[in-house]
Amino acid sequence: MKIHEIGEFGLIARLTSEIETGAGVVKGIGDDAAVLDNGERLLLFTTDAVVEGVHFDLQHVAVEDVGYKSLAVNISDIAAMGGKPTYAVISVGLPDYFTVADADALYRGLREVARNYGVAVVGGDTTGAPVLIVSVALLGEASPAGVRYRSSALPGDIVCVTGSLGGSAGGLFLQENGGFPCPEPLRDLLLRKHRRPEPRVAAGRMLGTLSGVHALIDISDGLASDASHIARASGVRCHIYKAAVPVEPATELVARRAGKDPVDWGLYGGEDYELLFTVAPAAMGEVSAALSECGADCRPVGKVLEGKGLWMVLTDGSLTELSRRGYEHFAAAGGNR
Amino acid sequence: MKIHEIGEFGLIARLTSEIETGAGVVKGIGDDAAVLDNGERLLLFTTDAVVEGVHFDLQHVAVEDVGYKSLAVNISDIAAMGGKPTYAVISVGLPDYFTVADADALYRGLREVARNYGVAVVGGDTTGAPVLIVSVALLGEASPAGVRYRSSALPGDIVCVTGSLGGSAGGLFLQENGGFPCPEPLRDLLLRKHRRPEPRVAAGRMLGTLSGVHALIDISDGLASDASHIARASGVRCHIYKAAVPVEPATELVARRAGKDPVDWGLYGGEDYELLFTVAPAAMGEVSAALSECGADCRPVGKVLEGKGLWMVLTDGSLTELSRRGYEHFAAAGGNR
Repeated sequence: MKIHEIGEFGLIARLTSEIETGAGVVKGIGDDAAVLDNGERLLLFTTDAVVEGVHFDLQHVAVEDVGYKSLAVNISDIAAMGGKPTYAVISVGLPDYFTVADADALYRGLREVARNYGVAVVGGDTTGAPVLIVSVALLGEASPAGVRYRSSALPGDIVCVTGSLGGSAGGLFLQENGGFPCPEPLRDLLLRKHRRPEPRVAAGRMLGTLSGVHALIDISDGLASDASHIARASGVRCHIYKAAVPVEPATELVARRAGKDPVDWGLYGGEDYELLFTVAPAAMGEVSAALSECGADCRPVGKVLEGKGLWMVLTDGSLTELSRRGYEHFAAAGGNR
Repeated sequence: MKIHEIGEFGLIARLTSEIETGAGVVKGIGDDAAVLDNGERLLLFTTDAVVEGVHFDLQHVAVEDVGYKSLAVNISDIAAMGGKPTYAVISVGLPDYFTVADADALYRGLREVARNYGVAVVGGDTTGAPVLIVSVALLGEASPAGVRYRSSALPGDIVCVTGSLGGSAGGLFLQENGGFPCPEPLRDLLLRKHRRPEPRVAAGRMLGTLSGVHALIDISDGLASDASHIARASGVRCHIYKAAVPVEPATELVARRAGKDPVDWGLYGGEDYELLFTVAPAAMGEVSAALSECGADCRPVGKVLEGKGLWMVLTDGSLTELSRRGYEHFAAAGGNR
């Protein structure tokens, strides 16, 4: 059987079903990061790799940005648990055509994001490889009360995001369509959102301090895909209101010019690295005020109900089931990249 | 400038020279694993990746063995600090031709070594890739008194290894020379040593309890390369006695039949994952007895002197400087693979 027949999530489920966890594993495979018992504080542990030709194309993206983003996406996984990122190790596979200047640029990007988020790079491995590969493993920490899982949504909760969506998808579109007409400042904004995402660490840690915040995940695969992760892990049904999907205004403009539905880019684009979370209705005011202190929004996009599945509420009030479509490796017919 | 002009170790030195470490980093880049402050126990953190076509050839090696070895070599890095391996995350890049059965086999090997060494696999990432890539990051723990560095050798110390060397090199030779005459049991032994190394975790932890044990490293690149790491990091000179290099007997036989010097395979072969350590002479009896309890040997191979560099003492008593030759990625003219 070919891997694309079962898809990335099917493969992960299959491979990890027989993995034994041990004492000290509070949460193993199945959330943005593992949660490990570690005395008074919990230890968070995550990994994510990027591969040239799969995740990026060096014709379009600078090596420095690859370094930046490869660590940033891991930091977002720690933020998505309510944690503080601490220590990273980095394995790089360097192709023959790579020069020392390229390697310097890669590490310049890595160092920049590490500095911005207080991460210490404490180890690594370098090897040859047919294409550029950067595999990062990152530790983080959180107090036991401050960790948030994707499995904790409760019926009645409001579903919210910390900022606009579709910015990365808009940047990717502009990157792949060089001459597409777009005002320069908006182009720069969208390209930056795609290449240099800013994980929501302060917002994630703040959400972990608020008892009214229940489930938490980051938007890496896309709102639809990540909301469906919450629905499945929590055993609930999620409704997303189409009119409430906060599409990045610059993306809206580009999508309309390209004849596409901007909401699709917000729902399925992925790689925005905003946080998606569910909140008890009574806590909405407190959560919104707390997030604004961290420079993040609290934008309601849907609600949690009893049942299962992910549904979109259209502007006329009718419901349509949302596929989990979004970025999935090995998918036979899925993904927008 | 091309990367092979400065070599793997030159590249690592260059890339990591500007890396900032933070509070809590007891030892960052530069040993087998990072050492991090973590309350009463220290946290160890390491990463190592293997890439098809660079580290292994699936024409010769089973996918299951790739899984096994990719985690085993990381476990050896924790053993080389005197630590106990605990939690792993695993990023895999899977090529198009990979089947679900291949992925199952990869994880069977990973699970086997995880079970054997009490490691919990708590997370991972799967992605497409042009060739098979397995990148492992592993945590471990140790008491502050139990950690051993490569930088702690003292003049007067005896240099020792925990077992025979060159077994992996012999296995690699047989693997690449299919019809080479070799008795079946010896062939099986050497192939197993190459494909399924058994990291010396119990021995490493035991060595960490003995105050007479000073420097510790694992033999991944080869005795010559790893002894030179100790010499440089400790600011000492090391002498290795040619007659004392404990070449694996089966390798000795194969090397002689192939018209090669068996000692070269012991010195430069690498991937034996034995431990290399230095001991105060007065502690040799205690160390030897303690290691035999863990099923490991204490084989003296050299001594530590004031000065610098790595020298081999020939059987007639004359000295020859040893190059650091061993496995080095990107080397312009080095490595035995």
